[in-house]
Order: sequence, then structure tokens, then C-alpha cells
Amino acid sequence: MQIGMIGLGKMGYNLVLNLLDHGHEVVATDVNNEQVKNIANDGATGAYSIKELVSGLNTPRVVWMMVPAGNITEDVLTELKSVLEPGDIVIDGGNSNYKDTLRRAEELKEKGLHFVDVGTSGGTEGARNGACTMIGAEPEVFEIIEPAFKDLSIENGYLYTGKVGSGHFLKMVHNGIEYGMMQAIAEGFEILEKSEFDYDYEAVAKMWNHGSVIRSWLMELTQSAFSKDPKLEGIRGVMHASGEGKWTVEAALDLQVPAPVIALSLMMRNRSLEDDTFTGKVVAALRNEFGGHAVVKK
Amino acid sequence: MQIGMIGLGKMGYNLVLNLLDHGHEVVATDVNNEQVKNIANDGATGAYSIKELVSGLNTPRVVWMMVPAGNITEDVLTELKSVLEPGDIVIDGGNSNYKDTLRRAEELKEKGLHFVDVGTSGGTEGARNGACTMIGAEPEVFEIIEPAFKDLSIENGYLYTGKVGSGHFLKMVHNGIEYGMMQAIAEGFEILEKSEFDYDYEAVAKMWNHGSVIRSWLMELTQSAFSKDPKLEGIRGVMHASGEGKWTVEAALDLQVPAPVIALSLMMRNRSLEDDTFTGKVVAALRNEFGGHAVVKK
Amino acid sequence: MQIGMIGLGKMGYNLVLNLLDHGHEVVATDVNNEQVKNIANDGATGAYSIKELVSGLNTPRVVWMMVPAGNITEDVLTELKSVLEPGDIVIDGGNSNYKDTLRRAEELKEKGLHFVDVGTSGGTEGARNGACTMIGAEPEVFEIIEPAFKDLSIENGYLYTGKVGSGHFLKMVHNGIEYGMMQAIAEGFEILEKSEFDYDYEAVAKMWNHGSVIRSWLMELTQSAFSKDPKLEGIRGVMHASGEGKWTVEAALDLQVPAPVIALSLMMRNRSLEDDTFTGKVVAALRNEFGGHAVVKK
Amino acid sequence: MQIGMIGLGKMGYNLVLNLLDHGHEVVATDVNNEQVKNIANDGATGAYSIKELVSGLNTPRVVWMMVPAGNITEDVLTELKSVLEPGDIVIDGGNSNYKDTLRRAEELKEKGLHFVDVGTSGGTEGARNGACTMIGAEPEVFEIIEPAFKDLSIENGYLYTGKVGSGHFLKMVHNGIEYGMMQAIAEGFEILEKSEFDYDYEAVAKMWNHGSVIRSWLMELTQSAFSKDPKLEGIRGVMHASGEGKWTVEAALDLQVPAPVIALSLMMRNRSLEDDTFTGKVVAALRNEFGGHAVVKK
Repeated sequence: MQIGMIGLGKMGYNLVLNLLDHGHEVVATDVNNEQVKNIANDGATGAYSIKELVSGLNTPRVVWMMVPAGNITEDVLTELKSVLEPGDIVIDGGNSNYKDTLRRAEELKEKGLHFVDVGTSGGTEGARNGACTMIGAEPEVFEIIEPAFKDLSIENGYLYTGKVGSGHFLKMVHNGIEYGMMQAIAEGFEILEKSEFDYDYEAVAKMWNHGSVIRSWLMELTQSAFSKDPKLEGIRGVMHASGEGKWTVEAALDLQVPAPVIALSLMMRNRSLEDDTFTGKVVAALRNEFGGHAVVKK
Repeated sequence: MQIGMIGLGKMGYNLVLNLLDHGHEVVATDVNNEQVKNIANDGATGAYSIKELVSGLNTPRVVWMMVPAGNITEDVLTELKSVLEPGDIVIDGGNSNYKDTLRRAEELKEKGLHFVDVGTSGGTEGARNGACTMIGAEPEVFEIIEPAFKDLSIENGYLYTGKVGSGHFLKMVHNGIEYGMMQAIAEGFEILEKSEFDYDYEAVAKMWNHGSVIRSWLMELTQSAFSKDPKLEGIRGVMHASGEGKWTVEAALDLQVPAPVIALSLMMRNRSLEDDTFTGKVVAALRNEFGGHAVVKK
Repeated sequence: MQIGMIGLGKMGYNLVLNLLDHGHEVVATDVNNEQVKNIANDGATGAYSIKELVSGLNTPRVVWMMVPAGNITEDVLTELKSVLEPGDIVIDGGNSNYKDTLRRAEELKEKGLHFVDVGTSGGTEGARNGACTMIGAEPEVFEIIEPAFKDLSIENGYLYTGKVGSGHFLKMVHNGIEYGMMQAIAEGFEILEKSEFDYDYEAVAKMWNHGSVIRSWLMELTQSAFSKDPKLEGIRGVMHASGEGKWTVEAALDLQVPAPVIALSLMMRNRSLEDDTFTGKVVAALRNEFGGHAVVKK
Repeated sequence: MQIGMIGLGKMGYNLVLNLLDHGHEVVATDVNNEQVKNIANDGATGAYSIKELVSGLNTPRVVWMMVPAGNITEDVLTELKSVLEPGDIVIDGGNSNYKDTLRRAEELKEKGLHFVDVGTSGGTEGARNGACTMIGAEPEVFEIIEPAFKDLSIENGYLYTGKVGSGHFLKMVHNGIEYGMMQAIAEGFEILEKSEFDYDYEAVAKMWNHGSVIRSWLMELTQSAFSKDPKLEGIRGVMHASGEGKWTVEAALDLQVPAPVIALSLMMRNRSLEDDTFTGKVVAALRNEFGGHAVVKK
């Protein structure tokens, strides 16, 4: 089928190559003209503006956005609303908040446009050779786009998840689970590190990946990371977060679901961004007040 | 090689079959005579007492205990200490607390006996067809027993983890990680369940196992569980715990490692054992005291 | 000074009586005409509509809303915007979300109206005899209304907290702290309750209120609650929440502040609203899958 | 009554002065001879060894230990067992683990000695002018020593808590609650500190101590701390812990009580002792592995 791709970053570029491999026709654009030239060399039709991209697609058009969530997604959508025609389909493959997705679907509907939200997992490698995709859409719209997702996903790796919003919601929760699993693994290795024993962490992760209950892709990545730096001496334990974990906790609060593990995974990331904490200062000052416990002066 | 197995429960029985498959000679005993008869029919030499088992082994003997941690392990060890000879080797393959293991190794050493602690993961299926084993031992003792572990473990699925105690400690931490991963997965599905969307959980887990970041054996088991009962309507959410999670938290506290995810995984299990909580009553009573908020009468 | 009070519930009614005690002139209204009659008998000027209330006040008018946060506050504000005149002052003494407060202040400013946000603590008893108030306002507006707050608050119990929004934000955090303190106290008593010892909880709380580090008003309320029901046998541990705790956690997430204690206090309240959990079912099903651990059938 | 005091540190010295004020007769000793001289000048009978102290007391002797928990308490008890006579009473007023207390009581019983465990709260100021004491003892032993505790405690500030061990257990839980309350207060102030508002923390704490729900001695200490250093700029947020919080969490785990707030209060203290964490390194490395997210190099 024919697809227009907006955004040729690491994910978008790989998805285009993946689609081309499977015989799909892709018109692609990016704010970076170099990337447009490159993708044209790789077999896609390059477009140097969204307008050009849209005019190069047959109706009903299928336009896939693979751009950063937030303002950029909002801007691209604003432009798309002004150039697309009723019946056209817009896919948001980024990590948008599902609440934004629900609002945007309503706004596009007013213009007769269909909105599809796709959660994409598997990293850049997956985008290139077999992604994992979770797709929220009107059922009849999903039928139109299914061939593309069937081809670019790993076998059994795509799912129609229901009405619009369900794809991004599911991806959000996926990331929340990921936060919890990563923190669990990491806490385990810190306990090993502080223990009286002397483990070879790469060997431990490798062994755990062969037959243990906790074998997993994340444990394979752990093995890989330790193979490069056995004690991770070269990096600092600063854990950034990109939004979905926070949204998962907010959704849990909205739904009154206790989700302590996901919440704490996020909070320990936030803690890692601080060198010192005001919380700690208050507690230290209080201990000094009532017990005369010494404080650590700066 | 020749091995004596004490304990023919689900794990021990399968380990014996696994060893026999690989041409090892096994003398086996259990408090249940039926199990001894069965294992004899399956190719092992049956023994109807520990004494008989010991007398059927060549020195230096290798005796493997696969019995419940705690008092039973203690009792078997007491008996073994009275019948074994200097140079013999005792393997504890159960989920013993590593602190007990360290103490027991000292006690056996006084008798000239060697102690080996083996953490075993992979469930009963792994015990039968390829386990994951983490082995703490004196290096020269490990050399003697390695052939057995090489054969019964899945390829790359056994590891010499260092001095005595390190096997059980590592298995303990493995289980702590497992608690965290399971709770993370479970919180995610509860958020899905309470959401406005309508997911097919078996399909979600299956899709996540094909290309997503959180693909794992635990997610495969999640898929399997939902395939049998799509909304888990037949069971109650009572989460028992068998000790290693608690020991992991205690070790974290001893080592001053913050391990909130593992700790909360365990605490939510403990919470699930309570129908109502005194904590909740106190908070409800306090809210009534200061704000006149209604309490729920019994 | 002269004040118009909208809302004669438990809090509003008591605040009016408190203001009258101190010689202030109050025009008061409520959707419930009975309450208007009662307050008129108690010395205020009754008004049977917001319009009537507004017409009974000298300019610049000071109108205090003591109504439920959310839609009702929104509706009253909409009506006030249509009847007040530039220079008039609107006080929101309810538990509004500070984000709503910031937005509303902007909206009122467009009409030339001043907005004041007041966080009120101390319960209905405090409203009657001495409240604790935290007041966000433009400095020159605060000067106008300060006499009322000085009179109705307990000595040293009112504070000008800065620009608009700061009063509700501070009250929100106050409630977050309150959640954490209550949960800490409650967890402690559950540990006592499950222990091998046999404590008289009222006596314990009373003793702790005389000289211990944790003496506090909440511990006095704990003592009071146990004096009425020594083991809290008459109530269930269902812990409702009214919003501020959730907003505090959301603010902490927005500001990347790790606030595990406040977050967990809220999550344990949410847990108490569930009889059984999907989380628990998933974990129980997983334990059954890999270890053959029995599940509790329904 | 007549009391022998062992240990003239901040707590012990003040308790002696307090007892002398109320007309009790005190024989006191310490490893530091200077302190013995000082207390003799202040009205006690100085003793330069435990033996001398014991010989200066009438039978049945009442000997109060106010020494650090752990090895020193153990050593003093060993010596006391060799010099005391059946019927004598030993009071442990330190922060001993109640499990040690239960064991020690058994050991003393074998010698015919009585053991009393006293949890002491209120800090050094309380020790001097009115402590808060929780006393576990055999009932008939409590009767003998009650006059001393009645006099040295603040009014209503002493409690007979039941059998031996109950005093230290209750003090332990008291400290667990204290951890939770302190962390709740501290998290709240960190949220304020990171917010868009600009609060005067001393003024906030003072206002909260006048009429709010969270008024408490800890909030008074918070006010005091901020009065000395308005933003706590002079200290680092390093939060040490002295044992009781850890024991409370361990007791909660033993009793299967979910105590997330107390546990997290402790774990955030442990986190504050780390400049960087291995947990953080593992998570950062994993994020780099699957998403190409940049890590912070050392």
C-alpha cells in the first residue's frame, strides 16, 4: 500500500526502510532535507514539505507521523488538518499521551479525518526489522492500514487494541511495566554489589537468561551492558524518564489503582536527578533538633 | 558420576530423572516409601533411609538434599553429620536462607564435610529438562560436582558463583527481582482492567512477547494464564510468599540498599492476605475525628 | 469589616458565627433557605440569592465562597462574574486545586475582579473558634481582608503566603503531609495489633501525647478514637480520599520531587477501596503457572 | 527510692539529675571517671566500677543501664549477672532490640534476676525535666519501680505496657512512626521548595502549629530549625538512622503487616547515604541499550 511518513528520525527512517522492504510505496518528509535525500536514495519518494507529501498521495491518504510527542505533534496535526481531505487517515506512531490522542481524534473527526494511534515498542532495531505495534483505530480504518502493520511487525507482533486511544494507552502501560521491571532488576544487582560476595554480573545475567524465571529481553540487555563495562564504572546512575511512566502513575491515580511499584520506579528516577535533597535536609535538621544528632555540614 | 538424592518431591524427583537421562548413577531416598519405589522403577537405586543411602555411595560421597528449607533441612543435616565421613560433600538445593547456609557450612567443616549451596530456578519443568542453577562452593569441590550440574542444566544455565553462600544469596536476589517483575506486570494489567478500554489480555501478552521491550518468560506465563481464564474470574488475588522475597528485603536493609520496588512487591502480597486492615481502621477513625467524614460501619 | 458569605455548610456557617463574634458584618446566602433563616437568627443578614447578597454589600465588595470544590465553585464564580463590579474581591476558601485557582484568577482579572485563595485547616471546630488559614492574594488585596482573617484565626494561625495560588498550593501540601502522618501512625498501630504484646491503645496514645517525639494533634485524635472504640471493632478500614492527596502526588511528579511516603499513603487508601485486586489475581496466576503454587479459588 | 545508674551520657546524666530533684537516692557510675565526679558534685553517690555501684545498693537492688544498645549493653549485663543477687532488678533504658530483650530476660531469670525494659522518648530535654517512658516488666516488679518513673516522667507520660519486651517493642514502633512523620513533613517542604511559589518556611511551620491538623512537636522542631537556617543551606541532606526504624520494618515483615510508609522512610534515608547508586547505573545502562538514550559519563 501507499503511505506518507512524516519524521525521519531513528524510528521513522527505519520504519520506512522496513516498509520498502515489504514492497510498500512510501512518500517521506522531514524538517531535515538531508534525511529526505537519503531516504530517496533508499527507495522512497522524497518530499520537502508536508504539502508536497500530501499532494503525492492517493486518496484516501494514509499519513503516518513519527515525530516527538507534544508541541511538534500538535503543529504537524494543525498543518495536516489544513491540507488533508475528508476520509484521509492520520496515524500517530509517537509516544503521545492518550488524553491528547482522544482530544485530537475528536478534532480531526470534525474535519472528516480519521485518527489512528499506534504504540511502537522494540526500539530502533525493531523498527527496522520487526516492530511490536499496538493499534487503536475505528475498525474499518484498521482494515485499511492492517497490511502495512502486518508486514513491518514481527510475526504476532501487532495487535488491534480497540477504539482510538487504546493503542497509546497500552503503550503507556507497557512502559510503566518496563519501568518496574528495570528497577527490580537494578535493585537486585545493587544488592549483589553491596554484598559480601563477588559476582561476575555478565555471567550472572547470562545464566539467568538460560532457564531462570526472570529470563527476559531486559535481562539480555543487562548481560550486554555488563559485557561492555563489567561494573558500570564508566557511567553515572542518572535515570532520566521520558513521560510514559509519569502518565502511567497519573492514570493509576485517576483510576484509583494502587501501583506502588511503577510509582516508586519513577520516583527513584526522579531521586537520581538530585545531588542533594531538601527532604534530606529537613529530616537531618529535625534529627539534630530532637536528638542532638550531628548534621553533615556543607 | 554417582549422587545420593534426599527428597523426592516435585523438584527432587525430576532432578533424579534428569540425572539418570544423562547417565549418572543415583541413590535416592524420601520419607515417602512410595516415591522411593517409583524412582527405583525409573532407574535409580532406592534407599529407605538416609543411612542406607549413605552406605550405598562411594567416598567421597556426594549427597544432594532437595527438601523444604528450615527445620527439615536442619534435621537432615543433623543426621548426615552423624553418618558421613570427612571429605564427603553435602549439597543443599533448596531455598535456604544464605545466613543459615553460612552457619551450616561452618558446622559441617568442623566434621571435615564440604557444603555446597545451589539455587535452582526454572520450576519443576526446568528440573526435569534443563534447570538453571547457581552454585556456591569451595572451588575444588565445585570441580568434583560440575559434571552433574553441566548435564542437568540448560545450556549456559549453570554458574559457579563463588564461595559457599553465594548460590543461595544469588537465588534469593533472583526471587526478589522476580517479585518486582511480577508486581510490575500485574499492576499494569490492573490499570488496563480499570481503564475505559476493553483489551483482550491474552492477545496483549502475546503481542508483547513478540518484539516488545518487556518480552519475558513471565509475560509468556501471563499469556498462558489468560488463555485459560481471560479475566481471571475463577481465582482470588491472594498472593502468598515463600520467604526469599522477605530475605531479599532484609538483606537490602542490612546492606543499606534502598530497594523500594522489591519491598513494595512483598508488602502488597502481605496486604492481599488481609481482608480488612487495622491501618485502614485507624485512618478512617482519624478522618472521622477531625473532619466528620463518615466511616463505614461493620 | 463587611463580608458576603456564599455557602453555609459546616465550615461556612461556623466561619460566619466566628466573624460575627468579632464584630464583623456578614451578609450570607446558601442554596438551602433554612440555613439562611438560621444564620439570620444568629445575627447575619440573610440573602436568598447571590444577586441579593451582592446588592447588600458596599463596594469594593468582599465575597467569600465556602462551597465544594469543582463544578459548584465554577458555577458560583460564573454567576459572580456577571454581577460583581471591577475592584470587588472574591475569596475561595474551599479545597480547590491550585491549577484551577491560577486559571480562575486570570479569568476574574479580565473582569477587573481580584481573587484570593484561602486554605483552611483545623476542621469545623477551628472554623468556629479559631481556624488556621493560609492566604494567597495580591499584597494590596490582602491588606484589605487581613482584619477578618486575623480575627477568625487562632493566634498566629493565619499567614499571607504570597501570590494568588500559594494559599491553595500550601493547603494541598498540608493535606499531603497529613496523609503521610496518618498512615505512619496507622501502620504503627497495626504492627502493635499483630504483635505478641497486648497494648491498651488509648493508653499508648495518651502516653505518647505526654512527652514523646510523636506528640501531635493527630495522636490526640487517635487517643480520642480509641477511647470510643478500644480496638476499632465497629468500623471497616475503608480509607476514602478527597482529592488534595492526589493533587500533591501529581504536583510532586510535575516537579520531579520523589515523595514516596505521600504517594504510598494515597495508594494504600486506594487499595482499601478494593475487596480483591486484579493485581493480586495476576500474581497468583503467575505463581501457579511457574511453581504450581495453589491459587485460592473463588 | 534508691537506684543505681550505669551510664552517664546525655540521657543517663539528665535522668539522674531528674531523679535527684524528686528526692531519690542515686548511686551512679560511668566508664568516664570525670562524669562520675561531676554527678557526685551534683548530689549522687559516685561509683568507679559496677562492682562498687552494686555494693552501694540495698537489696533488692534496682540497677538502671543507660548505655548504648548492642555490645556494650551485653557486656554490662554479663558483669551484672556475676555481681547481682537473686531478686535484684535490672532496667535497660536504652534502645535495645526487643528480641535481645526477650533473650536477656530469659538469661537473667536463670540467675533469679528480674529484667525491665524501658523505652524512653522526649530527648535529652525530656530526660532532664520530664521524660516519656514505656515500661515492660513483671507486674510485681513494676510496682517496686513505679515511684521513680512516676516522678521522672512528665504527667501522664509513663505507661506500664505489659510483659517484658513490650516497652522496647513499643519504643521501636514509636520510632517507626516518627520516621514516617518526619519523612512526610520533609517531602512536603521539598514540594514547596521546588514549586513556583516562594514561601517563608519558618512562618509556614509556625502557622501550621497554630490550629492546623498537622500541628505537632515535630512541626515545632521544624519551625525551630528553619528559624536558624531559613533554607537549610548550611547542611547536607544526609539522613542517618539508628536502628529502630529498621527493626520496625523487620517486625512488620515478620508479622506480615504492610508498612510501606515506614519502610520507604527508612529506604530514602539509606538512599541519602549514597552519592551515586548501582541501581541507577543499571537502569541508565539499560535505557542506553534499548533506546539509545544517552548515559551520563563519569
